[in-house]
Amino acid sequence: MSNIEAKRQESTRNFDAAWSTPGVRVDEVGPQGGGKRQILISRPDGMLENSNFKLREDPIPEPKEGEAVVQTMYISLDPTHRFWASDMVQYSPAVGLNTCMRAFGVGKVVKSSDEGKLATGSFVTGVLGVQEYCVGPIAGFNAAVPDVPLNWNCSIFSPVIGLTAWVGTNICNAKEGTTMVVSGCAGAVGSIAAQLGKLRGARVIGIAGGEAKCKFMMEELKLDGCIDYKAFTPGTDKFRDQLNTLCPDGIDSFFDNVGGPILDDVVLSMNVFGKIASCGHISAYNEKGQTGVSMNNWQNVLHKRITIQGFICFDHLANFGDALAELVPLAKSGQVKVEEDIQESGLENYLAILNKLFSGDTRGKLMMKVANI
Amino acid sequence: MSNIEAKRQESTRNFDAAWSTPGVRVDEVGPQGGGKRQILISRPDGMLENSNFKLREDPIPEPKEGEAVVQTMYISLDPTHRFWASDMVQYSPAVGLNTCMRAFGVGKVVKSSDEGKLATGSFVTGVLGVQEYCVGPIAGFNAAVPDVPLNWNCSIFSPVIGLTAWVGTNICNAKEGTTMVVSGCAGAVGSIAAQLGKLRGARVIGIAGGEAKCKFMMEELKLDGCIDYKAFTPGTDKFRDQLNTLCPDGIDSFFDNVGGPILDDVVLSMNVFGKIASCGHISAYNEKGQTGVSMNNWQNVLHKRITIQGFICFDHLANFGDALAELVPLAKSGQVKVEEDIQESGLENYLAILNKLFSGDTRGKLMMKVANI
Repeated sequence: MSNIEAKRQESTRNFDAAWSTPGVRVDEVGPQGGGKRQILISRPDGMLENSNFKLREDPIPEPKEGEAVVQTMYISLDPTHRFWASDMVQYSPAVGLNTCMRAFGVGKVVKSSDEGKLATGSFVTGVLGVQEYCVGPIAGFNAAVPDVPLNWNCSIFSPVIGLTAWVGTNICNAKEGTTMVVSGCAGAVGSIAAQLGKLRGARVIGIAGGEAKCKFMMEELKLDGCIDYKAFTPGTDKFRDQLNTLCPDGIDSFFDNVGGPILDDVVLSMNVFGKIASCGHISAYNEKGQTGVSMNNWQNVLHKRITIQGFICFDHLANFGDALAELVPLAKSGQVKVEEDIQESGLENYLAILNKLFSGDTRGKLMMKVANI
Repeated sequence: MSNIEAKRQESTRNFDAAWSTPGVRVDEVGPQGGGKRQILISRPDGMLENSNFKLREDPIPEPKEGEAVVQTMYISLDPTHRFWASDMVQYSPAVGLNTCMRAFGVGKVVKSSDEGKLATGSFVTGVLGVQEYCVGPIAGFNAAVPDVPLNWNCSIFSPVIGLTAWVGTNICNAKEGTTMVVSGCAGAVGSIAAQLGKLRGARVIGIAGGEAKCKFMMEELKLDGCIDYKAFTPGTDKFRDQLNTLCPDGIDSFFDNVGGPILDDVVLSMNVFGKIASCGHISAYNEKGQTGVSMNNWQNVLHKRITIQGFICFDHLANFGDALAELVPLAKSGQVKVEEDIQESGLENYLAILNKLFSGDTRGKLMMKVANI
């Protein structure tokens, strides 16, 4: 585990620097780099559109002292890209206009100003951006988890996915004798959270859209039950009946990636002292203006003494090592299935692929393969 | 403090027995007793109405072995009576039809089957009911806090009020350098929570309806600011502007007694890691059917990593002694002002007086004086 502990310490320090240290203006600088790059040129109004981005090709920079150049291998496509591109109030600075679009990724060091600190040829993760080459301070890159498929560093071993699933499952306090419901359960975070919940002994019910995803949840994730929200409309008795049938002892915790009417229905069936890990509201990300949840069952929060906790992985980087200590052996042994949707159609198709997340047309971790190893 | 510790231990044991021990069917038995009694004869549909109650006069019972008869001095009128009378899912059993309406109160022991355990003439608190005389197990009565006005046992020293305010203020983590907003701030719980928040060093902004209540919040509770929701309508920019002007550093915590559009507006101005103590939703208690909150700003729960915690005082009876240890000296010394609205128009007017809570036509703790000492 010394690798993991080293990674933990490194990750914490580096993400703090990259994401939240006062003085580091992520919104102004954007990821620096070269090659093909997706430049954010305007803010979205509703869905992200082609007019918000321009594909540009820049020279590959040379590393300055203390810097390295990393060739992007994979980038992670996440719902939060929608936030980063907008200038709404959010958990991190918005991506600056006319800078490269932000993205987490894994890549290979092709030039280093300090081979002792970061050797050419080594694999690293970081905020590489939607671009072919990233240049930045060596301290801003982290060693990839070794001896696993490189792409797993963009899914189960990335803070955005693995740490998020792990923290939210902790908030849910999933354990023997409890029932945990996971929305967005065929997605990157949801599919790992649901499996973690199962491994910790909880009865786990997944919610996702479509027969294929339900089959995936039952056969691959081996959950105790699933609801297809396309067959049973949230906010209706049909959906609530499904919840009650599948959760005969009530719901103890809810890992919520979706928000909206599903949240409102789940609250109605929660047990006393229930926990809700509020991880995402993908049902509303692309609405124009303010986006609402009509909580018809809000009084249950009081009567059942429910706790709702919004959380973001970046607040929990100090525990990334703990998360990896649990996740690495589970993924290696196959006890947790790592589901990925790896697209290879090139950076020019970034937006079309990203928008698959919002149409529900993807399963597991969506990422782009940008270069071959 | 030995009195308080003794009371703590006794209260915990007794409330557990009265409220939540399996086997004690509060919904079937109701408070037993005699004299004038308000009997619940039907469930409310919307506001409680005269047709839901019947005033009946029963003989004053004799205490059986292990029991005592208590003459009601004061009863506490609380918004939660609306829940108790309905058969909606709630935090405690509903009051059984054709039994005496439940109410917390303070009274004087007039007959005791065991003078050693509970002496005639001593003052006690308990679930006395809306009736002139209560008979019940001695273990179900608690010694009133001595050397204070007897009625304070129905307000700041009752679990329903004092403990609720204390627990919610703890959830808010009110302290130096933080801003706490309190809705329903001229009410029984809100007025104590706001003063506790101030004493713990927070900047406290109160929300209530009407000029008189605002004057009360500023001059009597000595808060840092107040908003009159009748002058500035929640859910509009005018109300939000008031919030932002009075909370220039954002809102760190919200003690919510009201729910509805005020909750939605407050979320918009909350700081990262903000805490919401969800104590009541009086804005919706009398709505028919399901009662909603349209959360237009729900995404802030995620982006700002807000925690919302529903709570009920009865879960925290183990800490009642700690609450009294803080509240008794503060009330005695006048550092916390105990605001009360004591009505003396007789038990036959129970419903008319209770409904003042929902019209916003009361200030501080509403109670009825049922008998003279």
